[in-house]
Amino acid sequence: MPEERIASVAMTRVTQEASAEDTDVLAVEEPLEIRVAWESGGDVREKNIAVTMRTPGDDADLASGFLFTEALIRSHEEIDSIRHWGSPNIIRLSLRRGVKLDVGKLDRHFYTTSSCGVCGKTSIDALRVANAALPAGRFVGRDVVHRLPSALQEHQTAFRATGGIHGAAIFDHDGNLLRAREDIGRHNAVDKVIGSLFREGATPLSGKILMVSSRASFELVQKAVVAGIPVLASVGAPSSLAVDLARELNLTLLGFVRDGRFNIYAGQIE
Amino acid sequence: MPEERIASVAMTRVTQEASAEDTDVLAVEEPLEIRVAWESGGDVREKNIAVTMRTPGDDADLASGFLFTEALIRSHEEIDSIRHWGSPNIIRLSLRRGVKLDVGKLDRHFYTTSSCGVCGKTSIDALRVANAALPAGRFVGRDVVHRLPSALQEHQTAFRATGGIHGAAIFDHDGNLLRAREDIGRHNAVDKVIGSLFREGATPLSGKILMVSSRASFELVQKAVVAGIPVLASVGAPSSLAVDLARELNLTLLGFVRDGRFNIYAGQIE
Repeated sequence: MPEERIASVAMTRVTQEASAEDTDVLAVEEPLEIRVAWESGGDVREKNIAVTMRTPGDDADLASGFLFTEALIRSHEEIDSIRHWGSPNIIRLSLRRGVKLDVGKLDRHFYTTSSCGVCGKTSIDALRVANAALPAGRFVGRDVVHRLPSALQEHQTAFRATGGIHGAAIFDHDGNLLRAREDIGRHNAVDKVIGSLFREGATPLSGKILMVSSRASFELVQKAVVAGIPVLASVGAPSSLAVDLARELNLTLLGFVRDGRFNIYAGQIE
Repeated sequence: MPEERIASVAMTRVTQEASAEDTDVLAVEEPLEIRVAWESGGDVREKNIAVTMRTPGDDADLASGFLFTEALIRSHEEIDSIRHWGSPNIIRLSLRRGVKLDVGKLDRHFYTTSSCGVCGKTSIDALRVANAALPAGRFVGRDVVHRLPSALQEHQTAFRATGGIHGAAIFDHDGNLLRAREDIGRHNAVDKVIGSLFREGATPLSGKILMVSSRASFELVQKAVVAGIPVLASVGAPSSLAVDLARELNLTLLGFVRDGRFNIYAGQIE
Protein backbone atom coordinates (compact mmCIF):
# COMPACT_ATOMS: atom_id res chain seq x y z
CA MET A 1 0.00 0.00 0.00
CA PRO A 2 1.46 3.42 -0.93
CA GLU A 3 2.39 5.16 2.30
CA GLU A 4 0.93 8.47 1.16
CA ARG A 5 -2.56 7.05 1.74
CA ILE A 6 -2.12 6.47 5.46
CA ALA A 7 -0.54 8.44 8.31
CA SER A 8 0.49 7.51 11.84
CA VAL A 9 -0.60 9.82 14.65
CA ALA A 10 -0.08 9.79 18.39
CA MET A 11 -3.28 9.35 20.37
CA THR A 12 -4.67 8.17 23.72
CA ARG A 13 -6.85 5.05 23.96
CA VAL A 14 -9.53 5.33 26.65
CA THR A 15 -11.69 2.49 27.99
CA GLN A 16 -14.13 2.36 30.92
CA GLU A 17 -11.29 1.87 33.37
CA ALA A 18 -8.05 3.11 31.89
CA SER A 19 -6.27 5.22 29.31
CA ALA A 20 -2.99 4.63 27.49
CA GLU A 21 -0.78 6.52 25.05
CA ASP A 22 -0.58 4.79 21.67
CA THR A 23 -0.34 5.47 17.93
CA ASP A 24 -3.04 5.00 15.32
CA VAL A 25 -3.05 4.80 11.53
CA LEU A 26 -5.43 7.21 9.79
CA ALA A 27 -6.58 7.75 6.22
CA VAL A 28 -4.85 10.79 4.73
CA GLU A 29 -7.15 13.60 3.58
CA GLU A 30 -5.67 16.40 1.46
CA PRO A 31 -7.22 18.86 -0.99
CA LEU A 32 -6.69 18.33 -4.71
CA GLU A 33 -7.17 21.25 -7.08
CA ILE A 34 -8.11 20.07 -10.59
CA ARG A 35 -7.16 22.43 -13.44
CA VAL A 36 -8.01 22.00 -17.10
CA ALA A 37 -6.02 23.63 -19.91
CA TRP A 38 -7.28 23.80 -23.50
CA GLU A 39 -6.63 25.70 -26.69
CA SER A 40 -9.08 28.36 -27.75
CA GLY A 41 -8.46 30.60 -30.78
CA GLY A 42 -4.71 30.02 -30.70
CA ASP A 43 -4.39 30.78 -26.98
CA VAL A 44 -4.08 28.33 -24.11
CA ARG A 45 -6.87 28.82 -21.59
CA GLU A 46 -6.77 27.36 -18.10
CA LYS A 47 -9.44 27.00 -15.44
CA ASN A 48 -9.62 25.60 -11.92
CA ILE A 49 -12.68 23.43 -12.15
CA ALA A 50 -12.73 21.65 -8.82
CA VAL A 51 -11.21 21.33 -5.37
CA THR A 52 -11.97 18.04 -3.69
CA MET A 53 -10.80 16.55 -0.39
CA ARG A 54 -9.19 13.30 -1.43
CA THR A 55 -6.77 10.64 -0.25
CA PRO A 56 -3.53 11.16 -2.23
CA GLY A 57 -2.66 8.61 -4.90
CA ASP A 58 -4.16 7.85 -8.32
CA ASP A 59 -4.67 11.59 -8.85
CA ALA A 60 -4.59 11.26 -12.65
CA ASP A 61 -7.32 8.61 -12.43
CA LEU A 62 -9.34 10.89 -10.18
CA ALA A 63 -9.04 13.96 -12.40
CA SER A 64 -9.85 12.12 -15.61
CA GLY A 65 -12.64 10.09 -13.99
CA PHE A 66 -14.17 13.28 -12.63
CA LEU A 67 -14.18 14.98 -16.03
CA PHE A 68 -15.57 11.85 -17.68
CA THR A 69 -18.37 11.12 -15.17
CA GLU A 70 -19.34 14.81 -15.20
CA ALA A 71 -19.69 14.42 -18.99
CA LEU A 72 -17.12 17.13 -19.71
CA ILE A 73 -14.96 14.79 -21.81
CA ARG A 74 -16.00 11.63 -23.67
CA SER A 75 -12.80 9.79 -24.62
CA HIS A 76 -9.32 9.35 -23.21
CA GLU A 77 -8.06 10.50 -26.61
CA GLU A 78 -9.22 14.02 -25.73
CA ILE A 79 -6.51 14.16 -23.04
CA ASP A 80 -3.04 15.29 -24.06
CA SER A 81 -1.35 15.08 -20.64
CA ILE A 82 -2.15 14.92 -16.94
CA ARG A 83 0.48 15.95 -14.42
CA HIS A 84 0.98 17.51 -11.02
CA TRP A 85 1.57 21.20 -11.39
CA GLY A 86 3.95 22.83 -8.92
CA SER A 87 2.40 20.97 -5.97
CA PRO A 88 1.38 17.39 -5.16
CA ASN A 89 -2.08 18.83 -4.44
CA ILE A 90 -2.61 20.49 -7.82
CA ILE A 91 -3.17 18.45 -10.97
CA ARG A 92 -3.42 19.87 -14.48
CA LEU A 93 -5.20 18.04 -17.25
CA SER A 94 -4.27 19.38 -20.68
CA LEU A 95 -6.66 18.65 -23.56
CA ARG A 96 -5.43 17.68 -27.00
CA ARG A 97 -5.23 20.43 -29.64
CA GLY A 98 -8.59 20.89 -31.29
CA VAL A 99 -10.62 19.45 -28.38
CA LYS A 100 -13.17 22.01 -27.31
CA LEU A 101 -14.31 22.40 -23.73
CA ASP A 102 -17.79 23.85 -23.32
CA VAL A 103 -16.94 26.68 -20.92
CA GLY A 104 -20.58 27.69 -20.74
CA LYS A 105 -21.37 24.20 -19.47
CA LEU A 106 -18.61 24.49 -16.91
CA ASP A 107 -20.03 27.77 -15.68
CA ARG A 108 -23.60 26.50 -15.65
CA HIS A 109 -22.66 23.34 -13.81
CA PHE A 110 -19.96 24.56 -11.52
CA TYR A 111 -20.91 27.99 -10.46
CA THR A 112 -21.79 27.69 -6.81
CA THR A 113 -21.36 25.22 -4.00
CA SER A 114 -23.06 22.71 -1.78
CA SER A 115 -23.10 22.27 1.93
CA CYS A 116 -20.03 20.07 1.80
CA GLY A 117 -17.91 22.61 3.59
CA VAL A 118 -15.09 22.22 1.14
CA CYS A 119 -16.99 21.81 -2.07
CA GLY A 120 -17.15 24.64 -4.49
CA LYS A 121 -14.08 26.47 -3.36
CA THR A 122 -11.99 28.00 -6.15
CA SER A 123 -8.65 27.19 -4.70
CA ILE A 124 -6.98 25.40 -1.86
CA ASP A 125 -6.38 28.73 -0.11
CA ALA A 126 -10.12 29.33 0.05
CA LEU A 127 -10.71 26.10 1.99
CA ARG A 128 -9.91 27.62 5.33
CA VAL A 129 -13.04 28.99 6.94
CA ALA A 130 -11.97 28.72 10.59
CA ASN A 131 -8.85 30.67 11.37
CA ALA A 132 -9.20 31.78 15.00
CA ALA A 133 -8.27 29.11 17.54
CA LEU A 134 -10.62 28.14 20.36
CA PRO A 135 -9.51 28.76 23.96
CA ALA A 136 -7.44 25.81 25.23
CA GLY A 137 -8.76 23.73 28.12
CA ARG A 138 -10.37 20.47 29.24
CA PHE A 139 -14.03 20.56 28.35
CA VAL A 140 -15.38 17.04 28.79
CA GLY A 141 -15.08 14.15 31.26
CA ARG A 142 -14.59 10.48 30.47
CA ASP A 143 -17.91 9.33 31.90
CA VAL A 144 -19.80 11.87 29.83
CA VAL A 145 -18.09 10.70 26.62
CA HIS A 146 -19.01 7.06 27.32
CA ARG A 147 -22.69 8.08 27.56
CA LEU A 148 -22.84 10.04 24.26
CA PRO A 149 -23.28 7.19 21.72
CA SER A 150 -26.41 5.71 23.27
CA ALA A 151 -27.95 9.16 23.72
CA LEU A 152 -27.34 9.95 20.04
CA GLN A 153 -28.70 6.56 18.93
CA GLU A 154 -31.94 7.11 20.83
CA HIS A 155 -32.59 10.17 18.66
CA GLN A 156 -31.67 8.54 15.35
CA THR A 157 -35.19 7.51 14.48
CA ALA A 158 -34.68 7.74 10.71
CA PHE A 159 -31.46 5.75 10.95
CA ARG A 160 -33.23 2.96 12.80
CA ALA A 161 -35.84 2.88 10.03
CA THR A 162 -33.46 3.00 7.06
CA GLY A 163 -29.88 2.24 8.09
CA GLY A 164 -28.74 4.97 5.73
CA ILE A 165 -28.73 8.38 7.40
CA HIS A 166 -26.30 10.37 9.55
CA GLY A 167 -27.02 11.80 12.97
CA ALA A 168 -25.55 14.84 14.75
CA ALA A 169 -26.32 16.02 18.27
CA ILE A 170 -25.20 18.79 20.59
CA PHE A 171 -24.77 18.04 24.30
CA ASP A 172 -24.02 20.26 27.26
CA HIS A 173 -20.99 19.78 29.51
CA ASP A 174 -22.84 17.23 31.65
CA GLY A 175 -23.85 15.11 28.67
CA ASN A 176 -27.46 16.28 28.43
CA LEU A 177 -28.65 16.21 24.81
CA LEU A 178 -29.75 19.68 23.74
CA ARG A 179 -30.64 19.08 20.09
CA ALA A 180 -30.34 16.29 17.49
CA ARG A 181 -30.79 16.23 13.71
CA GLU A 182 -30.49 13.65 10.93
CA ASP A 183 -29.60 13.92 7.24
CA ILE A 184 -28.31 11.75 4.43
CA GLY A 185 -25.30 14.11 4.26
CA ARG A 186 -23.14 14.26 7.39
CA HIS A 187 -22.26 17.93 6.79
CA ASN A 188 -25.99 18.67 6.46
CA ALA A 189 -26.78 16.93 9.76
CA VAL A 190 -24.14 19.13 11.43
CA ASP A 191 -25.39 22.31 9.73
CA LYS A 192 -28.95 21.47 10.81
CA VAL A 193 -28.13 20.90 14.47
CA ILE A 194 -25.87 23.96 14.70
CA GLY A 195 -28.31 26.05 12.64
CA SER A 196 -31.16 25.13 14.95
CA LEU A 197 -29.36 26.59 18.00
CA PHE A 198 -27.93 29.48 15.97
CA ARG A 199 -31.44 30.58 15.03
CA GLU A 200 -32.29 30.82 18.74
CA GLY A 201 -29.29 33.04 19.40
CA ALA A 202 -27.48 30.30 21.35
CA THR A 203 -24.15 30.62 19.50
CA PRO A 204 -21.23 30.59 20.18
CA LEU A 205 -21.73 27.10 21.61
CA SER A 206 -18.95 27.41 24.20
CA GLY A 207 -18.67 24.44 26.54
CA LYS A 208 -20.85 22.22 24.33
CA ILE A 209 -20.08 18.85 22.70
CA LEU A 210 -20.86 17.92 19.08
CA MET A 211 -21.36 14.17 18.49
CA VAL A 212 -21.66 12.73 14.97
CA SER A 213 -22.54 9.20 13.86
CA SER A 214 -20.11 9.47 10.94
CA ARG A 215 -16.40 9.88 10.38
CA ALA A 216 -14.76 13.18 11.39
CA SER A 217 -13.43 15.08 8.40
CA PHE A 218 -11.69 18.43 7.95
CA GLU A 219 -15.04 20.08 7.11
CA LEU A 220 -16.68 18.97 10.38
CA VAL A 221 -13.73 20.26 12.43
CA GLN A 222 -14.11 23.63 10.69
CA LYS A 223 -17.85 23.78 11.33
CA ALA A 224 -17.38 22.97 15.05
CA VAL A 225 -14.69 25.63 15.48
CA VAL A 226 -16.68 28.34 13.65
CA ALA A 227 -19.61 27.58 15.98
CA GLY A 228 -17.33 27.85 19.05
CA ILE A 229 -17.82 24.19 20.03
CA PRO A 230 -14.75 22.90 21.94
CA VAL A 231 -15.36 19.11 21.61
CA LEU A 232 -16.10 16.99 18.52
CA ALA A 233 -16.82 13.28 19.14
CA SER A 234 -17.34 10.89 16.22
CA VAL A 235 -18.48 7.28 16.05
CA GLY A 236 -16.15 6.70 13.09
CA ALA A 237 -12.51 7.47 12.33
CA PRO A 238 -11.05 10.96 11.94
CA SER A 239 -9.02 11.91 8.87
CA SER A 240 -5.40 12.99 9.12
CA LEU A 241 -6.29 16.58 8.22
CA ALA A 242 -9.09 16.67 10.80
CA VAL A 243 -6.50 15.80 13.48
CA ASP A 244 -4.02 18.40 12.21
CA LEU A 245 -6.61 21.18 12.15
CA ALA A 246 -8.10 20.20 15.53
CA ARG A 247 -4.64 20.39 17.16
CA GLU A 248 -3.96 23.76 15.56
CA LEU A 249 -7.29 25.27 16.63
CA ASN A 250 -7.56 23.69 20.14
CA LEU A 251 -10.54 21.49 19.30
CA THR A 252 -10.75 18.33 21.43
CA LEU A 253 -11.22 15.57 18.84
CA LEU A 254 -12.46 12.14 19.94
CA GLY A 255 -12.85 9.24 17.48
CA PHE A 256 -14.28 5.71 17.48
CA VAL A 257 -16.56 6.73 20.35
CA ARG A 258 -18.56 3.50 20.79
CA ASP A 259 -18.84 0.32 22.81
CA GLY A 260 -17.42 1.89 25.97
CA ARG A 261 -14.18 3.04 24.31
CA PHE A 262 -12.84 6.07 22.50
CA ASN A 263 -9.59 7.59 21.22
CA ILE A 264 -8.34 11.13 21.93
CA TYR A 265 -6.68 12.53 18.79
CA ALA A 266 -6.42 16.18 19.86
CA GLY A 267 -6.81 18.02 23.15
CA GLN A 268 -7.33 16.52 26.59
CA ILE A 269 -10.27 15.38 28.69
CA GLU A 270 -10.97 16.29 32.32
CA MET B 1 -40.71 11.02 12.81
CA PRO B 2 -41.80 13.31 9.94
CA GLU B 3 -42.75 11.10 7.01
CA GLU B 4 -40.94 13.31 4.52
CA ARG B 5 -37.62 11.91 5.79
CA ILE B 6 -38.33 8.31 4.82
CA ALA B 7 -39.90 6.61 1.81
CA SER B 8 -41.21 3.09 1.21
CA VAL B 9 -40.09 1.34 -1.96
CA ALA B 10 -40.82 -2.06 -3.44
CA MET B 11 -37.77 -4.33 -3.65
CA THR B 12 -36.69 -7.97 -3.80
CA ARG B 13 -34.80 -9.58 -0.93
CA VAL B 14 -32.27 -12.18 -2.07
CA THR B 15 -30.44 -14.71 0.13
CA GLN B 16 -28.21 -17.64 -0.77
CA GLU B 17 -31.21 -19.84 -1.46
CA ALA B 18 -34.25 -17.72 -2.21
CA SER B 19 -35.68 -14.37 -3.24
CA ALA B 20 -38.90 -12.67 -2.17
CA GLU B 21 -40.78 -9.49 -3.04
CA ASP B 22 -40.94 -7.06 -0.13
CA THR B 23 -40.91 -3.35 0.70
CA ASP B 24 -38.11 -1.37 2.32
CA VAL B 25 -37.90 2.03 4.00
CA LEU B 26 -35.22 4.35 2.62
CA ALA B 27 -33.84 7.74 3.61
CA VAL B 28 -35.20 10.44 1.30
CA GLU B 29 -32.59 12.39 -0.67
CA GLU B 30 -33.71 15.55 -2.48
CA PRO B 31 -31.81 18.62 -3.69
CA LEU B 32 -32.16 21.88 -1.76
CA GLU B 33 -31.30 25.15 -3.46
CA ILE B 34 -30.26 27.82 -0.95
CA ARG B 35 -30.82 31.43 -2.04
CA VAL B 36 -29.81 34.55 -0.15
CA ALA B 37 -31.47 37.93 -0.65
CA TRP B 38 -30.00 41.17 0.69
CA GLU B 39 -30.29 44.90 0.17
CA SER B 40 -27.59 46.72 -1.72
CA GLY B 41 -27.83 50.41 -2.62
CA GLY B 42 -31.60 50.44 -2.30
CA ASP B 43 -32.05 47.36 -4.50
CA VAL B 44 -32.74 43.79 -3.40
CA ARG B 45 -30.08 41.43 -4.69
CA GLU B 46 -30.52 37.67 -4.72
CA LYS B 47 -28.05 34.85 -5.31
CA ASN B 48 -28.21 31.05 -5.40
CA ILE B 49 -25.34 30.15 -3.13
CA ALA B 50 -25.65 26.38 -2.84
CA VAL B 51 -27.38 23.25 -4.00
CA THR B 52 -27.01 20.36 -1.58
CA MET B 53 -28.47 16.85 -1.59
CA ARG B 54 -30.29 16.68 1.72
CA THR B 55 -33.01 14.78 3.53
CA PRO B 56 -36.07 17.07 3.63
CA GLY B 57 -37.00 18.60 6.99
CA ASP B 58 -35.39 21.31 9.11
CA ASP B 59 -34.51 23.21 5.94
CA ALA B 60 -34.42 26.56 7.74
CA ASP B 61 -31.94 25.09 10.24
CA LEU B 62 -29.85 23.73 7.38
CA ALA B 63 -29.76 27.00 5.42
CA SER B 64 -28.92 29.15 8.44
CA GLY B 65 -26.42 26.62 9.81
CA PHE B 66 -24.68 26.49 6.42
CA LEU B 67 -24.35 30.28 6.20
CA PHE B 68 -23.14 30.45 9.81
CA THR B 69 -20.58 27.62 9.65
CA GLU B 70 -19.28 28.98 6.33
CA ALA B 71 -18.74 32.28 8.21
CA LEU B 72 -21.03 34.23 5.87
CA ILE B 73 -23.25 35.43 8.72
CA ARG B 74 -22.39 35.82 12.40
CA SER B 75 -25.67 36.25 14.30
CA HIS B 76 -29.27 35.10 13.95
CA GLU B 77 -30.20 38.78 14.17
CA GLU B 78 -28.80 39.24 10.66
CA ILE B 79 -31.64 37.07 9.32
CA ASP B 80 -34.94 38.74 8.47
CA SER B 81 -36.82 35.68 7.22
CA ILE B 82 -36.28 32.15 5.95
CA ARG B 83 -38.94 30.47 3.85
CA HIS B 84 -39.50 28.00 1.07
CA TRP B 85 -39.76 29.84 -2.22
CA GLY B 86 -42.12 28.42 -4.83
CA SER B 87 -40.93 24.86 -4.19
CA PRO B 88 -40.26 22.63 -1.17
CA ASN B 89 -36.73 22.23 -2.59
CA ILE B 90 -35.86 25.93 -2.74
CA ILE B 91 -35.30 27.98 0.42
CA ARG B 92 -34.72 31.71 0.51
CA LEU B 93 -32.94 33.39 3.38
CA SER B 94 -33.54 37.14 3.47
CA LEU B 95 -31.06 39.27 5.39
CA ARG B 96 -32.15 42.15 7.59
CA ARG B 97 -31.96 45.65 6.12
CA GLY B 98 -28.47 47.03 6.52
CA VAL B 99 -26.76 43.64 6.79
CA LYS B 100 -24.06 43.44 4.18
CA LEU B 101 -23.12 40.20 2.46
CA ASP B 102 -19.57 40.07 1.16
CA VAL B 103 -20.30 39.08 -2.44
CA GLY B 104 -16.60 38.99 -3.21
CA LYS B 105 -16.17 36.40 -0.49
CA LEU B 106 -19.04 34.40 -1.96
CA ASP B 107 -17.41 34.45 -5.37
CA ARG B 108 -13.97 33.59 -4.00
CA HIS B 109 -15.30 30.75 -1.91
CA PHE B 110 -18.03 29.36 -4.09
CA TYR B 111 -16.88 29.63 -7.61
CA THR B 112 -16.27 26.09 -8.69
CA THR B 113 -17.06 22.61 -7.51
CA SER B 114 -15.71 19.43 -6.01
CA SER B 115 -15.94 15.86 -7.06
CA CYS B 116 -19.19 15.42 -5.16
CA GLY B 117 -21.17 14.94 -8.31
CA VAL B 118 -23.85 17.30 -7.17
CA CYS B 119 -21.79 19.92 -5.44
CA GLY B 120 -21.18 23.17 -7.14
CA LYS B 121 -24.19 23.14 -9.38
CA THR B 122 -25.96 26.47 -9.77
CA SER B 123 -29.45 25.13 -9.77
CA ILE B 124 -31.44 21.97 -9.35
CA ASP B 125 -31.85 21.72 -13.13
CA ALA B 126 -28.08 21.51 -13.52
CA LEU B 127 -27.88 18.42 -11.31
CA ARG B 128 -28.74 16.00 -14.08
CA VAL B 129 -25.59 14.80 -15.79
CA ALA B 130 -26.88 11.44 -17.04
CA ASN B 131 -29.87 11.76 -19.33
CA ALA B 132 -29.61 8.83 -21.75
CA ALA B 133 -30.93 5.55 -20.34
CA LEU B 134 -28.84 2.37 -20.44
CA PRO B 135 -30.11 -0.58 -22.51
CA ALA B 136 -32.49 -2.72 -20.42
CA GLY B 137 -31.52 -6.28 -19.56
CA ARG B 138 -30.27 -8.73 -16.94
CA PHE B 139 -26.57 -8.21 -16.46
CA VAL B 140 -25.55 -10.08 -13.33
CA GLY B 141 -26.24 -13.43 -11.67
CA ARG B 142 -27.02 -14.13 -8.02
CA ASP B 143 -23.89 -16.16 -7.33
CA VAL B 144 -21.67 -13.45 -8.74
CA VAL B 145 -23.29 -10.81 -6.49
CA HIS B 146 -22.73 -12.94 -3.39
CA ARG B 147 -19.00 -13.09 -4.19
CA LEU B 148 -18.50 -9.32 -4.67
CA PRO B 149 -18.16 -8.12 -1.04
CA SER B 150 -15.27 -10.40 -0.11
CA ALA B 151 -13.45 -9.60 -3.38
CA LEU B 152 -13.79 -5.85 -2.69
CA GLN B 153 -12.67 -6.29 0.93
CA GLU B 154 -9.51 -8.09 -0.13
CA HIS B 155 -8.47 -4.97 -2.05
CA GLN B 156 -9.34 -2.49 0.70
CA THR B 157 -5.88 -2.40 2.19
CA ALA B 158 -6.16 1.18 3.45
CA PHE B 159 -9.56 0.47 5.00
CA ARG B 160 -8.14 -2.47 6.92
CA ALA B 161 -5.39 -0.20 8.24
CA THR B 162 -7.57 2.77 9.16
CA GLY B 163 -11.27 1.86 9.25
CA GLY B 164 -12.01 5.19 7.62
CA ILE B 165 -11.83 4.99 3.84
CA HIS B 166 -14.19 3.99 1.03
CA GLY B 167 -13.53 1.35 -1.60
CA ALA B 168 -14.84 1.04 -5.17
CA ALA B 169 -14.17 -1.79 -7.61
CA ILE B 170 -15.16 -2.75 -11.13
CA PHE B 171 -15.88 -6.41 -11.91
CA ASP B 172 -16.60 -8.18 -15.18
CA HIS B 173 -19.78 -10.17 -15.79
CA ASP B 174 -18.29 -13.29 -14.20
CA GLY B 175 -17.29 -11.47 -11.02
CA ASN B 176 -13.58 -11.10 -11.77
CA LEU B 177 -12.21 -7.92 -10.21
CA LEU B 178 -10.74 -5.68 -12.93
CA ARG B 179 -9.71 -2.64 -10.88
CA ALA B 180 -10.09 -1.32 -7.32
CA ARG B 181 -9.43 2.07 -5.74
CA GLU B 182 -9.80 3.66 -2.30
CA ASP B 183 -10.45 7.20 -1.14
CA ILE B 184 -11.77 9.05 1.89
CA GLY B 185 -14.57 10.39 -0.38
CA ARG B 186 -16.87 7.77 -1.87
CA HIS B 187 -17.37 9.84 -5.05
CA ASN B 188 -13.59 10.09 -5.39
CA ALA B 189 -13.14 6.31 -5.05
CA VAL B 190 -15.67 5.87 -7.87
CA ASP B 191 -14.05 8.56 -10.05
CA LYS B 192 -10.65 6.93 -9.49
CA VAL B 193 -11.73 3.43 -10.46
CA ILE B 194 -13.72 4.60 -13.50
CA GLY B 195 -10.99 7.09 -14.48
CA SER B 196 -8.35 4.36 -14.37
CA LEU B 197 -10.19 2.31 -17.00
CA PHE B 198 -11.24 5.42 -18.95
CA ARG B 199 -7.59 6.40 -19.39
CA GLU B 200 -6.96 3.01 -21.02
CA GLY B 201 -9.78 3.54 -23.50
CA ALA B 202 -11.93 0.84 -21.85
CA THR B 203 -15.11 2.94 -21.61
CA PRO B 204 -18.05 2.56 -22.02
CA LEU B 205 -17.96 -0.14 -19.35
CA SER B 206 -20.84 -2.16 -20.82
CA GLY B 207 -21.52 -5.43 -19.03
CA LYS B 208 -19.43 -4.45 -16.00
CA ILE B 209 -20.39 -4.21 -12.31
CA LEU B 210 -19.48 -1.32 -9.98
CA MET B 211 -19.27 -2.28 -6.28
CA VAL B 212 -18.91 0.36 -3.55
CA SER B 213 -18.28 -0.07 0.17
CA SER B 214 -20.50 2.91 0.94
CA ARG B 215 -24.12 3.90 0.57
CA ALA B 216 -25.51 4.40 -2.94
CA SER B 217 -26.51 8.00 -3.57
CA PHE B 218 -27.92 9.87 -6.57
CA GLU B 219 -24.40 10.98 -7.56
CA LEU B 220 -23.05 7.41 -7.74
CA VAL B 221 -25.99 6.29 -9.92
CA GLN B 222 -25.22 9.17 -12.30
CA LYS B 223 -21.52 8.31 -12.47
CA ALA B 224 -22.26 4.64 -13.21
CA VAL B 225 -24.73 5.51 -15.97
CA VAL B 226 -22.42 8.07 -17.63
CA ALA B 227 -19.70 5.39 -17.68
CA GLY B 228 -22.11 2.89 -19.28
CA ILE B 229 -22.02 0.51 -16.27
CA PRO B 230 -25.30 -1.47 -16.03
CA VAL B 231 -24.99 -2.70 -12.39
CA LEU B 232 -24.26 -0.75 -9.18
CA ALA B 233 -23.90 -2.83 -5.99
CA SER B 234 -23.44 -1.12 -2.61
CA VAL B 235 -22.61 -2.49 0.83
CA GLY B 236 -24.81 0.20 2.39
CA ALA B 237 -28.31 1.52 1.77
CA PRO B 238 -29.42 3.36 -1.35
CA SER B 239 -31.20 6.71 -1.11
CA SER B 240 -34.72 7.22 -2.41
CA LEU B 241 -33.46 9.37 -5.29
CA ALA B 242 -30.83 6.79 -6.24
CA VAL B 243 -33.62 4.23 -6.65
CA ASP B 244 -35.80 6.63 -8.68
CA LEU B 245 -32.96 7.54 -11.04
CA ALA B 246 -31.77 3.92 -11.40
CA ARG B 247 -35.28 2.82 -12.41
CA GLU B 248 -35.58 5.66 -14.91
CA LEU B 249 -32.19 4.96 -16.52
CA ASN B 250 -32.27 1.12 -16.46
CA LEU B 251 -29.45 0.76 -13.93
CA THR B 252 -29.62 -2.45 -11.88
CA LEU B 253 -29.26 -1.18 -8.29
CA LEU B 254 -28.39 -3.63 -5.50
CA GLY B 255 -28.12 -2.54 -1.85
CA PHE B 256 -26.99 -4.04 1.48
CA VAL B 257 -24.80 -6.47 -0.48
CA ARG B 258 -23.12 -8.30 2.41
CA ASP B 259 -23.24 -11.42 4.57
CA GLY B 260 -24.69 -13.59 1.80
CA ARG B 261 -27.71 -11.35 1.22
CA PHE B 262 -28.68 -8.38 -0.93
CA ASN B 263 -31.71 -6.34 -2.01
CA ILE B 264 -32.68 -5.50 -5.60
CA TYR B 265 -34.03 -1.93 -5.75
CA ALA B 266 -34.04 -1.45 -9.52
CA GLY B 267 -33.68 -3.79 -12.51
CA GLN B 268 -33.48 -7.57 -12.46
CA ILE B 269 -30.78 -10.21 -12.07
CA GLU B 270 -30.22 -13.23 -14.29
